[in-house]
Formats: sequence, structure tokens, C-alpha cells
Amino acid sequence: MTGDRLRLDLAYDGAGFHGWAAQGRTDLRTVQGELEGWLERLLRRPVAVTCAGRTDAGVHARGQVVHLDVLPGEDAEALAGLLGRRLPRALPADLVVRRVAVAPPGFDARFAAVWRRYVYRLTDAPAPDPLTRGHVLGVRGGLDVPAMDAAGAALVGLHDFAAFCKRREGATTIRTLLDCTTRRTADLWGGDLVEVEVRADAFCHSMVRSLVGALVDVGRGRRPVSWPASLLDRPGRAGAVPVLPPHGLVLEEVGYPPDGVLAARVAEARALREPPVLPPTKEQP
Amino acid sequence: MTGDRLRLDLAYDGAGFHGWAAQGRTDLRTVQGELEGWLERLLRRPVAVTCAGRTDAGVHARGQVVHLDVLPGEDAEALAGLLGRRLPRALPADLVVRRVAVAPPGFDARFAAVWRRYVYRLTDAPAPDPLTRGHVLGVRGGLDVPAMDAAGAALVGLHDFAAFCKRREGATTIRTLLDCTTRRTADLWGGDLVEVEVRADAFCHSMVRSLVGALVDVGRGRRPVSWPASLLDRPGRAGAVPVLPPHGLVLEEVGYPPDGVLAARVAEARALREPPVLPPTKEQP
Repeated sequence: MTGDRLRLDLAYDGAGFHGWAAQGRTDLRTVQGELEGWLERLLRRPVAVTCAGRTDAGVHARGQVVHLDVLPGEDAEALAGLLGRRLPRALPADLVVRRVAVAPPGFDARFAAVWRRYVYRLTDAPAPDPLTRGHVLGVRGGLDVPAMDAAGAALVGLHDFAAFCKRREGATTIRTLLDCTTRRTADLWGGDLVEVEVRADAFCHSMVRSLVGALVDVGRGRRPVSWPASLLDRPGRAGAVPVLPPHGLVLEEVGYPPDGVLAARVAEARALREPPVLPPTKEQP
Repeated sequence: MTGDRLRLDLAYDGAGFHGWAAQGRTDLRTVQGELEGWLERLLRRPVAVTCAGRTDAGVHARGQVVHLDVLPGEDAEALAGLLGRRLPRALPADLVVRRVAVAPPGFDARFAAVWRRYVYRLTDAPAPDPLTRGHVLGVRGGLDVPAMDAAGAALVGLHDFAAFCKRREGATTIRTLLDCTTRRTADLWGGDLVEVEVRADAFCHSMVRSLVGALVDVGRGRRPVSWPASLLDRPGRAGAVPVLPPHGLVLEEVGYPPDGVLAARVAEARALREPPVLPPTKEQP
């Protein structure tokens, strides 16, 4: 169990950031660095935040969730009120705080999360909209969306996704993919936007961009519908799977259980992700 | 009447351009300069294009239309084929050619146009989507959309819009506003996008951004619904009307009459916009 925490819901344009965290380099602009810097200026003390999904460089978020510990002697409600008023005006235009609240007891942005939902957006329009090119990937050739949707459905379930992950020492690549759907939808031009939505308990490094890369190969007719699922439960990364560029990807939402079972969920997730003999692993989409 | 012409339909992100034309300055990047430069490289001869709507610096387009004369000895169909194949790959990412075609006889991108349709996008969400901030203006405080829509409806018709225009010597500010509607619609977050759509035979300089500026003052409750229409048919610019920033504005579409009456429309428009004793005027939204 933890003391009082604040929960912050964030959105950001990933283009201007070298990802959520810079992994040791202090000269790069990161979401974590930018956010902690402003929090420290407003709270006048050191701040460390923990996030639900450590997005890669260039990946966007509309539904990132972070927590921040309230120190002994601080009033959680007063802190939330102060940050709710002042943080939105302090932050730069590419980093938006959607909500600041006192978190329920036992909340942990990372370990209490039960799923992360990402959407990758593409367009196969011959002349893609230049106004959305920062978050929609243009691809040449029409995409067979029903084929992509069928190929994605075959990936759902508990599997070893090693074929779609950058391997990390001591980190499991076994994940439960809850949803993987592809749909054609209308953008402001009236069409030609293709959205791939994936939801899982967690994602390993580059997993979403690899899954969608495999589906795009299906959508272009380069691979059969059965191909992505045929790579499941193999031991290592499949070199044939293309990793799509980060700018089409958005962390849209993070799911948490009801307040009463938060602490139980955190204990379960820590046990799963942190085997006692190994250092903590970091998830990256 | 003119010889053969090509019609090009364009979209661009206005952020990287100092407007359609630089008005004498050659050191600024403009849509016209970028387009003519690439056309000259592909056609290996000087090129001058004429557009339907001379957008200001920072204003975007999804439906800009331009024409380009075919020279004696050139084959119009072959030229259209060449540009249709090579221009999309040559142009930078913020300038997209949607279509290249041989224009019908008598076509003139500027003088044959019977209306221009612009949409200005705003959001009154407390935490606006950072991914669309390049083409959606964030405003503080909730907007009363029905009041904005009613105020806009009262502007429709043939009026002197001098109160909403930057005055230019010898240029008329009498225009026919065909539509002015405000609606709340859903963006990818699921709400809070406000679109103001205006359509007129033509617009004078800064007119759309001034009209929408007046409507936003109504939407925020700073002015009554009757205020924008009360400024119609006054002789000069109304200093109280705010001119909104350019990045919320998109030239969405240009309307042309049926092919058979193009030449008659061009003659009519030239007579209206170019009184014989004055130099040609340029329209700017």
C-alpha cells in the first residue's frame, strides 16, 4: 500500500519528444522530463512521476495516465487543486493535462492498469490530407481492411508475442491481446482513414507497431490472412515483420479495475512483471 | 476565351507557407512559389498559375483550385498525364496535389468560380487535443453554438461587408454570403469541436476570420446575437471585430458552374471585379 497519490491524465503530441523517458540521457526533451520540470516549479520540491505506458519517441497519447506521490505534510486535495488550476496554463502546447485528481487508495498508474488501448491510423488515399500527416501514416496502394481485421482477430488471446517484440533481457513477451480490430472510417475529407485498434494487458517494446506492420502487409496482399497468427508463440523476433513509424500511433486509453480491488491488482501485476531475481522491467509499446 | 488549360486541385498545410503569394517578396516560401518551382522543373519552361482563393499566411486548404495554361505546341492530355504521375511524388509533404486534369473550355480557376467555401474550426474543450492544434483554434470558455448559428444566419445575403474587411483601394467589399452556419461536432476525442462554415461568391481580405471573430464574441456572450448583422453595410472596418488567427481556417471547396456556361461566368466576374479604369483586384480571405 502507498500513501496519498495524485492521478494526472495527459495528452501529448509525440513529435516534439524523445519519448516518455530518455533512459539516462538528460539532453533530450522527454514527456517525463517536461512534466516533472513543471511539477517541480509549481510544487517547489523534487517530483518523480510513474506512467501507465512508456511511449516511444514520436508516439502520441490522448489517454496517458501518471501518478505522483503526495509527501508527508502535504494536503492531497490542496495539491490537486493547485495543479488543476496552474498546470494547464504552465505546460507547453504539445503537452496537455486533461485532469488532476486525488487517486483512490492503492492506485498505481503502471501496476494497477488492467489494459492499454492504442490506435494506429493510416490512410490509403492517393492524396492524403496534409493537415493530419503528423498522426496518420500514408501508405501507397489500397488496404484490404476486412483481411486486416480477420488477421488481427486471429491474434487475440494469451500468446508469446516474441515475434513482434524487441527482446529485452529478463522481460517476458507473453501478453494477453484483448482486441485487435481494423475499420475504415471517415476523416474530415469524408473517407479513407483506416484505424487499427489494439488492447492488451500490456505491450512489450515496439509490439503495437510490429502487429500493425504485419496487418498492413496482409492489407496490401503481400501476405495471407493467416500469416500474423502463424508467428505467434515463436521464440524470437520475426525479422520479416515491418515496424511502422511511430507517428501513426496514439495511446488512447488505460483501463483500471474498480477502486476496491486496486491493491490486489497491483500485487498481482508486480508479481507477474517483477520476478524476484530480476530487476523491474519496463514496458514499451 | 483561352486556349487549353490544366486544372489542379490542391491541399496544403498553411503553417509552412507565407500564404498563397508573397506579393513581391521572393525570399518567403509561398504555395504559389513552391508549386510553380516544381512545375517548372517538371515541364522545363516558365510556369504561372492562377488560383481560386489567395489564402493568407497560415491559412490551410483542402480544396484549392488552380489553372495553368498549356502553350502552343504542347499536348494538354500528355501534360496532364505527366503531372498526374510525377507531381505527387515531387511535392513536399505539406503540399498535396489531389487531381490534375485538362480543364473544360473557358475554365478560369479564379473568374469562373461561383463560390468559395471555408471552414473555421475551434474547440472550447478545457483540454484541447494537442494532435489537432495546428488546424483547430482553442478558445477559453464554453461557446453558445446556437447563438453563433443564429448570428451567422442574419449575415446571409448581398451586403457591403466593409466592417469585416481590410480595405483595399479600388476593391469592392460588396459580397453575397450564401451560407454561414455553426455546428458542434465530434472530433476523435468524441466532442467539443465547433465548425463555422461560410460560403460566398468571394471574400475580401481577412473577411472569414473577421466574421468568425464576431461570431465567437457572440458565442462567449460578449455581444448579442444581433451584433454581427448590425455591422453590415457600414462604410469602413469595425475595429471592435476581432480577426482570428489563420491556423483555424481551411479553404475546403470552390464551386464552378456547368461547363457550358463557364465562359459567360468568366466574362461576368471580370466585369464585376475589374472596373475598366482600375487595375485588377485580388481577393483574399
